Amino acid sequence: MNQKIINEMTGIVGIDYVITDLHQKASYLYDEIEKTMRPSANEESIVVKPRSSEEISKIMKYSNDNKITVVVRGGGTGLCGACTPTRESIILSTERLNRIIEIDEDNMVAVLEAGVTLFDLLEELEKHECAGFPVHPGDEGAQMGGMAVTNAGGARAVRHGVMRKHIQGMEIVLPSGEIMELGGKLIKNNAGYNLMELIIGSEGTLAVVTKIILKLYPKDKYTATIIAPFECFDDASKAVLEILKSGVTPLAVEYQDKHLFTETAKMLGTRWQAEKGNADLMIIISEKTENLLYEACRTINEICEKNNSYETLFAGKKSEQDELLLIRSQHYELIKDIIGHSFDTAVPVADVPAYLKELKDLAAEYNTITNITAHIADGNIHSDIVLVDGKMPPYAEELKNKIFQACFNHKGTITGEHGIGKLRIDDLKLQKSETELNLMRGIKKLFDPNNILNPGTVFDL
Amino acid sequence: MNQKIINEMTGIVGIDYVITDLHQKASYLYDEIEKTMRPSANEESIVVKPRSSEEISKIMKYSNDNKITVVVRGGGTGLCGACTPTRESIILSTERLNRIIEIDEDNMVAVLEAGVTLFDLLEELEKHECAGFPVHPGDEGAQMGGMAVTNAGGARAVRHGVMRKHIQGMEIVLPSGEIMELGGKLIKNNAGYNLMELIIGSEGTLAVVTKIILKLYPKDKYTATIIAPFECFDDASKAVLEILKSGVTPLAVEYQDKHLFTETAKMLGTRWQAEKGNADLMIIISEKTENLLYEACRTINEICEKNNSYETLFAGKKSEQDELLLIRSQHYELIKDIIGHSFDTAVPVADVPAYLKELKDLAAEYNTITNITAHIADGNIHSDIVLVDGKMPPYAEELKNKIFQACFNHKGTITGEHGIGKLRIDDLKLQKSETELNLMRGIKKLFDPNNILNPGTVFDL
Repeated sequence: MNQKIINEMTGIVGIDYVITDLHQKASYLYDEIEKTMRPSANEESIVVKPRSSEEISKIMKYSNDNKITVVVRGGGTGLCGACTPTRESIILSTERLNRIIEIDEDNMVAVLEAGVTLFDLLEELEKHECAGFPVHPGDEGAQMGGMAVTNAGGARAVRHGVMRKHIQGMEIVLPSGEIMELGGKLIKNNAGYNLMELIIGSEGTLAVVTKIILKLYPKDKYTATIIAPFECFDDASKAVLEILKSGVTPLAVEYQDKHLFTETAKMLGTRWQAEKGNADLMIIISEKTENLLYEACRTINEICEKNNSYETLFAGKKSEQDELLLIRSQHYELIKDIIGHSFDTAVPVADVPAYLKELKDLAAEYNTITNITAHIADGNIHSDIVLVDGKMPPYAEELKNKIFQACFNHKGTITGEHGIGKLRIDDLKLQKSETELNLMRGIKKLFDPNNILNPGTVFDL
Repeated sequence: MNQKIINEMTGIVGIDYVITDLHQKASYLYDEIEKTMRPSANEESIVVKPRSSEEISKIMKYSNDNKITVVVRGGGTGLCGACTPTRESIILSTERLNRIIEIDEDNMVAVLEAGVTLFDLLEELEKHECAGFPVHPGDEGAQMGGMAVTNAGGARAVRHGVMRKHIQGMEIVLPSGEIMELGGKLIKNNAGYNLMELIIGSEGTLAVVTKIILKLYPKDKYTATIIAPFECFDDASKAVLEILKSGVTPLAVEYQDKHLFTETAKMLGTRWQAEKGNADLMIIISEKTENLLYEACRTINEICEKNNSYETLFAGKKSEQDELLLIRSQHYELIKDIIGHSFDTAVPVADVPAYLKELKDLAAEYNTITNITAHIADGNIHSDIVLVDGKMPPYAEELKNKIFQACFNHKGTITGEHGIGKLRIDDLKLQKSETELNLMRGIKKLFDPNNILNPGTVFDL
């Protein structure tokens, strides 16, 4: 990076907060995408760590005036390479914007700087009897700004929906350096086009999010986990649809290919207790009173039994539930070395059985496996193309396109929660018309006429 | 209107569906805004009633090519003059796009043409045991397309939020005539900028909405209404905040200036039973089981008592609840002839007491009344400037600006639910920076480069 730019950045944020050494900046170049899929970072990039919106405003104004690329980096927990600087860039890390400005119990909102992690927020909310926040994308290192611009999802979307549902306001810095407030602590607000909704999901291409106002909710204090084993996936799926119609909405309903449950348990030195069946649901229930929890468990059990489940397993103690969750979350350790390509498709929830069957059939056609992990009650399916002898198989591109075609046949999307980033640029063109892409590009140009903010995406003109 | 255009429209939709006669088209010129506030309609406009997206596509293409103004009209129940054609226009009425395409119980969504009214939808859902739709802006003549582009709210937003929370997909026709699908039956979808969220709330200025996919929910089957009378508004407001934190979320919490309750009841030949106190809350509770309803009522009663309410009145029977709702909704008949200007401001819910006090103080300053009707638990306050001797008082503009300034001091918005339309063009400039307005105008230009779709708004360049 040009020394003049480095000096300018040092002048804005201080010498301690500009990193140019490759070794020190190495951990800022990639997100958590599989190595087999990740875009290549430009190592000439430098890391700049501002402390305030005002410093960010100065960085953006200078960069815009001088047409220097800026890539905003939050917790780096993304899975589509969005925050990897593929061009020589200022990597604008929001890690020092980590102040919890306010937990406003009267309005039931949190006002947070963009660099506050989910961990920080949840820790702070422990101190507040009545206020919780439900969205949980898995990795608590995720930062609030990142969760906003990626519209983060996760397992709990069944009950609580994705980030978009919970963001009431934000402060942004435009590429021009102008600071702008959008929304507020307001529940209803119909004053003009909603630009905030456009920023949500824009993956750092339109503006830098510097603060967000998040809705908080009374906490659920009682939880239980049910494992419901079914002989066949169709029955499991029917049970899911019936649960969703019952009025009992679980926090999460997770499905994994059986071998992922059993082998992960073995890897962790324990045993997956649901021995019978080929299709297990992990249903997490969370309620405000013990009575409600009991009622919900009873209803769910009845629905599972009616749909031919084997005997369900119930975990009420925290330790038991934690063990189950650990098995669910640690499957990645089991398979990470064999993943070639990882998918995040989503289809309408009633289409899940047919779509999963097609994924299985495609895997059989190529004599491979699917590694399905699904947020099944919101239709979001994670599956893989696995390596063959440590290498990406020659059919990978062909299989990928067939998987997407199957997804489109069910009116699905190539990404339910991970986003487009620098990974799915060409894939998005399979899903969206040129007219829609051009509207997106027009919006990009409107916010960022010099294309300095996270370029190298599908939105570039 | 030029005969050539009339002939062209007749060619597209058929002679029965083009209205040129002033008498016949009179009811298409205005929405439900007060006469004292409404913009003036251009009576040269004609009404065109297409039956399909394809016909709309043809109308738009022709209009765009020939730079003819098109104003989309739904149920005409709006309150900001958005659908009034202030220029010579084709009034594109969606009333014949009235097909309920599908109630999909498995995915818990309704697929609806834009002209389906809320009444039609609710009537259809009566046939479906498990599926309901919660948003209710008051007038069931509202059409789904209109409810989407105005991001309709209403009293039930306390529990269920506004329209935006429930729209999963839509079909739109761009000014160019291109038909585009946005979203779908998907719960998670992060494929690019979310243009659908931009259309929601765009008041017919960006595209014609022709279909929408709405989320449905298991029905609440048990309802009750509590009237909680308080001596002073501050106590009532504290009770509201505490209820919102309790984990019990009422369907609605309505507040009105006491004389509106008592005099409306008198007008209807009945009596407002809460004789004591000066600040009454009408709290509507809606739950899935009788037990939950009982528990919720108990919790709410306790909170009200703790905050010094007089004895609460409980209505459990449908007839009793209907009578209360009637009094709540019919207050407009009482005051309609004295309304000069009507407001729809919203502030953070914890700011309501201070803001209401300022509204009262302002009214006292001008020796007038406020006519407050508030969706108090979501911070949305309707108030009026009343006529003096049947005329708009000379201080109206001054008082309006003071009311807005009070609202801004609380970080509020000039419109919580009614929107901007042709009413609040200059007012919006008080709330939004020129940069933000210019981003909105840029979006308008991107979707509608010839400015043919509902021009005469704040979004015109």
